Amino acid sequence: MIRTGETICAPATGSGGAIAIIRLSGPYSIGICEKIFVPSESRVRLAEQKGYTIVYGDIRSGDEIIDDVLVSVFRAPHSYTGEDSVEITCHASRFIQQKILELLVRNGALPAHPGEFTQRAFLNGKMDLSQAEAVADLIASESRMAHRIAVSQMRGSFSDEIRILRADLLHFASLIELELDFGEEDVEFADRTKLVELVSRVLSVTGELTSSFSLGNAVKYGVPVAIIGNPNTGKSTLLNLLLREEKAIVSDIPGTTRDAIEDTVVINGIQYRFTDTAGLRDTDDIIENLGIKKTHEKINTAAVIILVADINEGSGPIAGALSALRKRVGSEGKKILIVVNKSDIEAPGRRNEILDNLLPEAGESLLFISAKTGEGTDELKLKLGEAIDQDRLNSEDVIVTNIRHYDALSQVRESLTRVKEGLESGLQEDLVATDIRQAIHYLGEITGEITSDEILGNIFKNFCIGK
Amino acid sequence: MIRTGETICAPATGSGGAIAIIRLSGPYSIGICEKIFVPSESRVRLAEQKGYTIVYGDIRSGDEIIDDVLVSVFRAPHSYTGEDSVEITCHASRFIQQKILELLVRNGALPAHPGEFTQRAFLNGKMDLSQAEAVADLIASESRMAHRIAVSQMRGSFSDEIRILRADLLHFASLIELELDFGEEDVEFADRTKLVELVSRVLSVTGELTSSFSLGNAVKYGVPVAIIGNPNTGKSTLLNLLLREEKAIVSDIPGTTRDAIEDTVVINGIQYRFTDTAGLRDTDDIIENLGIKKTHEKINTAAVIILVADINEGSGPIAGALSALRKRVGSEGKKILIVVNKSDIEAPGRRNEILDNLLPEAGESLLFISAKTGEGTDELKLKLGEAIDQDRLNSEDVIVTNIRHYDALSQVRESLTRVKEGLESGLQEDLVATDIRQAIHYLGEITGEITSDEILGNIFKNFCIGK
Repeated sequence: MIRTGETICAPATGSGGAIAIIRLSGPYSIGICEKIFVPSESRVRLAEQKGYTIVYGDIRSGDEIIDDVLVSVFRAPHSYTGEDSVEITCHASRFIQQKILELLVRNGALPAHPGEFTQRAFLNGKMDLSQAEAVADLIASESRMAHRIAVSQMRGSFSDEIRILRADLLHFASLIELELDFGEEDVEFADRTKLVELVSRVLSVTGELTSSFSLGNAVKYGVPVAIIGNPNTGKSTLLNLLLREEKAIVSDIPGTTRDAIEDTVVINGIQYRFTDTAGLRDTDDIIENLGIKKTHEKINTAAVIILVADINEGSGPIAGALSALRKRVGSEGKKILIVVNKSDIEAPGRRNEILDNLLPEAGESLLFISAKTGEGTDELKLKLGEAIDQDRLNSEDVIVTNIRHYDALSQVRESLTRVKEGLESGLQEDLVATDIRQAIHYLGEITGEITSDEILGNIFKNFCIGK
Repeated sequence: MIRTGETICAPATGSGGAIAIIRLSGPYSIGICEKIFVPSESRVRLAEQKGYTIVYGDIRSGDEIIDDVLVSVFRAPHSYTGEDSVEITCHASRFIQQKILELLVRNGALPAHPGEFTQRAFLNGKMDLSQAEAVADLIASESRMAHRIAVSQMRGSFSDEIRILRADLLHFASLIELELDFGEEDVEFADRTKLVELVSRVLSVTGELTSSFSLGNAVKYGVPVAIIGNPNTGKSTLLNLLLREEKAIVSDIPGTTRDAIEDTVVINGIQYRFTDTAGLRDTDDIIENLGIKKTHEKINTAAVIILVADINEGSGPIAGALSALRKRVGSEGKKILIVVNKSDIEAPGRRNEILDNLLPEAGESLLFISAKTGEGTDELKLKLGEAIDQDRLNSEDVIVTNIRHYDALSQVRESLTRVKEGLESGLQEDLVATDIRQAIHYLGEITGEITSDEILGNIFKNFCIGK
């Protein structure tokens, strides 16, 4: 349900903290705020304030002072939503925020739906749909890479790429439809060779984009890494080692919590979500244990699997565990790292034995660490980055992180594959035209040039209140 | 440790939410911000911005865009701290906030200590000490009454009262010291009758204030109410009933959580903290059970005790429980309410039996409810309010909520009691003068006219970061 013309309000900041912001947007923002706000300088009139200015004063409920606040005024179209907007900066008491919201609603504002401010920004042409979606990603970003992808998307680099493809397809589509209008006359406005070229190019670009999705999605939500291995091989020591080194990064911002089941660590700007599998009793049991539902699930959802072994186990059991794991994973393209722990132990023979027997099999993915001394952690971090194609993230490539975009791009590719086949097999023009139209439609859905209440509803319902 | 001259920075909003504020205060606020901020309109210069204006643009780290933000500029002395200040409103990603703080620190700002912004406001004469303390209370306020007391204190009503008393005492003190200067000459500048009058008045006013502390403290942190009674008498049904009715009040603000052990309910603007005692097996066991440490503690810390009984128990066991409880509580002035539950049960005889036998003993504090139908809850709410002297809260009286103020006021009263006795018994003037000086000192400590690094340190360390 899209509402316009109404003035909406919502708290925009999180819980706790010293100060909070209540946000208003819509034609009556300033008027409604004026009813409950008394500027400290009596000659000041909120209604006469220019945009991008701040007024200090009290929020009052009748004679009762609720809080002293700053009121920031924004005038249409120069605001986030494109409408007249007000931000009330108050003290972060829940009581005060609740009271101010009550007063605003009593004076005609409506409580905002999740994402309604950004929805209005979209409807008022301040951003396209994929940019709007990037706002939510930006707010949720917890790592440098997730942040970087969101900023790039918010700035329109993805939309630009989509819009160019769409414009080119539209051009050809209109030429083909012109031909259809001429019916029997057998004129050909659209150059078939160029069209084939274009379709191939769009297929190639969208192929690159869809192929980036698994990486983009992992970076956005944290790369899932399953750690498996026997008890006492040092799985949690390893995890604590990584945690300890990276912990300082997030120490000062409130709300930093460690999930009880999952440990989240940001390494080289990428967030990893480590899950520890239930200890496997002994290597012979691995296959048996893999049957356990939970281990199954973790291995299924992981992008990287770290198999931790104790240097004292020797190559035989490790090779056995590795082969069982590979059989389980199959050809799914998951990366496996074999981490041999306790390399600090004075047993040069053991290391050599493992190297000799395992290196041919495991190659680059075999590494030695000492969770105790920290030896090998840098190499582990490097390997983790390689495992998920960190280089691609560091390039200027556009990365798709949104499943809605991925789905739309897949539809585009399906339609265009049909177009390509149709052109090659000399299919009827009207059928080719239909498929081109469909591809254009799905590209338009990404940027919101084509949209529906349902699409908008699905997108913005996942936003937070106040954004 | 008091730092001035430095520019400090901190996040000022809570965790979660859509947007966040990073706050800067100090002489280089605008200069530091300018180094990492690029206005969207290239002709705009942050350094030339007037106070109370907002600039839209990007925070950048080198070429990398960190976020698009609003920068609010405040110029000394017209800011919260009295110094040049900047508020950066960014997206609420933890990564972004951390990154902006890093950039600010790299450009010369220092991470702020808890309460350091308010400490500066105090040091720069924007508010006195008790007003500064009220800021923290205001932020923490969760009920109408706690909020009201904090606003009143922040507005200076308490300070004004203290300052008047102090000025009067200062006047007399200087006259007495003048007499002491004249030494042997036996002149009398200070009117002894008036001094006695003044001292009595100050004792009376401070007596009123100290007597309000237990109420004020309870309202600030939530009035502790212990619910005791046998299992299945409906203790938790009663609690759920109160919770359900009041729940909507706090539903929209994030961070509303129910404590697992304590249930917090706001009734008629006052927050109550209900704790449920471990079920007592049977009435005969109450005395025995009272021995249990936990129940002891809960009864000790409670301001009000609700003894819940089942109407089917009959008056005998209830009277026994009540008498045991009274013995336990002694003359501590705790209020006891006897709540007979399940009044919906069709047993008129039972109700009359209890009324006949218990009313003479229990009087006003006896009430019947049905946790099932809700009958009697309004009366219970009323009785709770009466039990804690709600009328006093609704009056214009100044209420003391801060233990530091209570301690200082107690010291004032001790000194002045000695003055009064001294005057009555014709004590030497210099001893009387010393005690008056002491009373003046302690009054000055409340408002911060007299202060020390230690006092300031103790006060502001309990503030949140960013305030």
